[in-house]
Amino acid sequence: MPQNAPQTYATALLTDRYELTMLQAALAAGTAHRGAVFEVFARRLPGGRRYGVIAGTDRVLDALEAFRFEDDDLEFLAAEGIVDDRTLAFLADYRFSGNVHGYREGEVFFPGSPILVVEGTFAEAVLLETVILSILNHDCAIAAAASRMAGAAGGRPLIEMGSRRTHEAAAVAAARAAYLCGFSSTSNLMAGRRYGVPTAGTAAHAFVLLHDSEKEAFRAQLDSQGLGTTLLVDTYDVAAAVRTAVEVAGDELGAVRIDSGDLAAVAVDVRRRLDEYGARRTGIVVTGDLDEFAIAALAAAPVDAYGVGTALATGSGHPTASLVYKLVARENAAGEMTPVAKRSVGKPSKGGRKWAYRRTENGRATGEIVTTAPVDGDDRPLLAELVRDGRVIGREPLDAARERHRSALTELPMEARSLSPGDPAVPTIFN
Amino acid sequence: MPQNAPQTYATALLTDRYELTMLQAALAAGTAHRGAVFEVFARRLPGGRRYGVIAGTDRVLDALEAFRFEDDDLEFLAAEGIVDDRTLAFLADYRFSGNVHGYREGEVFFPGSPILVVEGTFAEAVLLETVILSILNHDCAIAAAASRMAGAAGGRPLIEMGSRRTHEAAAVAAARAAYLCGFSSTSNLMAGRRYGVPTAGTAAHAFVLLHDSEKEAFRAQLDSQGLGTTLLVDTYDVAAAVRTAVEVAGDELGAVRIDSGDLAAVAVDVRRRLDEYGARRTGIVVTGDLDEFAIAALAAAPVDAYGVGTALATGSGHPTASLVYKLVARENAAGEMTPVAKRSVGKPSKGGRKWAYRRTENGRATGEIVTTAPVDGDDRPLLAELVRDGRVIGREPLDAARERHRSALTELPMEARSLSPGDPAVPTIFN
Repeated sequence: MPQNAPQTYATALLTDRYELTMLQAALAAGTAHRGAVFEVFARRLPGGRRYGVIAGTDRVLDALEAFRFEDDDLEFLAAEGIVDDRTLAFLADYRFSGNVHGYREGEVFFPGSPILVVEGTFAEAVLLETVILSILNHDCAIAAAASRMAGAAGGRPLIEMGSRRTHEAAAVAAARAAYLCGFSSTSNLMAGRRYGVPTAGTAAHAFVLLHDSEKEAFRAQLDSQGLGTTLLVDTYDVAAAVRTAVEVAGDELGAVRIDSGDLAAVAVDVRRRLDEYGARRTGIVVTGDLDEFAIAALAAAPVDAYGVGTALATGSGHPTASLVYKLVARENAAGEMTPVAKRSVGKPSKGGRKWAYRRTENGRATGEIVTTAPVDGDDRPLLAELVRDGRVIGREPLDAARERHRSALTELPMEARSLSPGDPAVPTIFN
Repeated sequence: MPQNAPQTYATALLTDRYELTMLQAALAAGTAHRGAVFEVFARRLPGGRRYGVIAGTDRVLDALEAFRFEDDDLEFLAAEGIVDDRTLAFLADYRFSGNVHGYREGEVFFPGSPILVVEGTFAEAVLLETVILSILNHDCAIAAAASRMAGAAGGRPLIEMGSRRTHEAAAVAAARAAYLCGFSSTSNLMAGRRYGVPTAGTAAHAFVLLHDSEKEAFRAQLDSQGLGTTLLVDTYDVAAAVRTAVEVAGDELGAVRIDSGDLAAVAVDVRRRLDEYGARRTGIVVTGDLDEFAIAALAAAPVDAYGVGTALATGSGHPTASLVYKLVARENAAGEMTPVAKRSVGKPSKGGRKWAYRRTENGRATGEIVTTAPVDGDDRPLLAELVRDGRVIGREPLDAARERHRSALTELPMEARSLSPGDPAVPTIFN
């Protein structure tokens, strides 16, 4: 399986203009090469959710490796007068040479968790702000929604099929994040190719409408895809379609899909009909504007798999994870590293580089411990080394992250899986 | 300015698996080469909005031209057993050879407007569904939000700065859509390079914190960026920072930015102080979780420009435009084109290829006329020819689309600019 294929496009201009103009000013002022620590964290979890989920870290590492200013990028910056010659020369040679620590993908996080810690010079670290936040804000938002949906689905498989509802490149990242959080497959072929996510699919109404009758359409699909396929039964009349499906496929048909109507009621009716026709092993896949609440509401319905589109790809009401990238320490004029923090109303930050640990009692998480110095003890360290002296060393297979998410969830208090708004499941303790 | 640079990545695998398996089944059944018409439309406008906005059409044309299955794509499909050899051979030679008509970018639309009409064989048209919907659902969602924000801002400039809140590639498309709908600039450098959107920026708290004092930071920024720059004044104490800013810059300072607190109240206080210090021409830029409602609420405040991030990049509560791609006509066994439509509960579609016209009376739009045959008359035709026999012929400069949006809006009834939920501003009339 192709894991961690590199970014297929340059990332250096996926950056806010002010990162470059701040760099220019700092180069001129002699402050650009001061040592600096930036941290990514969330001040709060969106929508009263109980936990956040880390996703996108490996994509950040890809973006960091691809963060190079090519000649045509530099020509654009020069032609537009965005930065001066000295800054252009710095950018031409730009390679991140610092260190990055971070929470691993699949791990959960809480308000204040220092999920990524970037150390380098101000110059090299400030440039990465935009692309790091873009990736983590998107992927963590999708992951949080996916994890709730997987919880709501119990053990039933979830198919991610939201590509058409979001930007074409975001769709690929969304499929990856969904798989990481427990979805079993995606409709998105690029996610299959780039990240090795298993792909799946059924058929669309267009396929039924293309043919002169529903029966011809079903026969064409079965002939080509085999009995294990999923026939879409709501193009015209569900009851008639289910009868036709079993007539054509026999009682070994893989599954039927319902995409409209009152899904719970229709599923009960379809199950009864399938059983009556002897197709007891034929599954029922439901789709159509499902989110974690609709999935939970179908728990008692005879449903074998869920296909989720819009709500997954848009973060189920919270399409961004509210993560920020803040300077928490920097070298002063005397060459000493000094904690810094802004005091803006409602947006304070805590100065100083952080370390983080998960405290558990009897196997249950009881605290997110955030400290300003490393601590030895029983609490599990949450920051892993991802980049050392500019070299990426922290990649891991997607399946490892998927397994980590499963185990991180089992450690959370019961109430963490509640779908209703509430406080974070684990308190953050600043020591 | 670089307009309409091509997609920098292949688009053929940005596709749902079922498009390919339906193709395989149709190839085997002998139905793949039937003529087909697919249409993109919205059943409803999200969130009680009064109008939708077309954006992304030029990106669709880019994606269509880049829609090629390369050798390594085909190897992936073969290795995973997704399609058979016959289908692989079809994909290897795939070039869209049909016709596309569509609403132009910047035009407004309503429920049922046939905003894109794709004609070809079923085989060639069905494959494009996912990427066409991904692009239009994203870009139209951002455009709708941007247009409302521009209306709320009156004539004041809007800077798009949401890149960090959305997927890194979506950010570029979002900046483009925002500019199309009246934003004056973006922070996103790639949008500047790829689409010629003007770029802008201020400075971050990190820049102030990097320096040993706010005064040193301001001086460094002014020395490098000149007096026209925008100084960020809420890192510590706004009143002190405004005094320092004028002290260092003099009364010709370009602008100050406020990013926190009660923006209206702070803006009034800052304006009073700036005036008191003689900096009457120094502008005030406000940022910080602004959406169209917050912008409208600042109408009476002494604000000179708005910076909008999260709400813009996530469609202000509606991150996807609910557009669907439906088969509306296809050739039958006898070789005749026949209207088709599904009858799914709550999701009916209208069969037959459509034409669309905007009816106006005394310069005001009174109806969106959708017909199943072309009509001559006074109503303005809305479908333009975009692709003829597979060749893209409908590209246009982004500024033309921007101008079209301005003029399309002036034609709408007054209530169209209302921010409260309501019915579409213009009724759709199916003739």
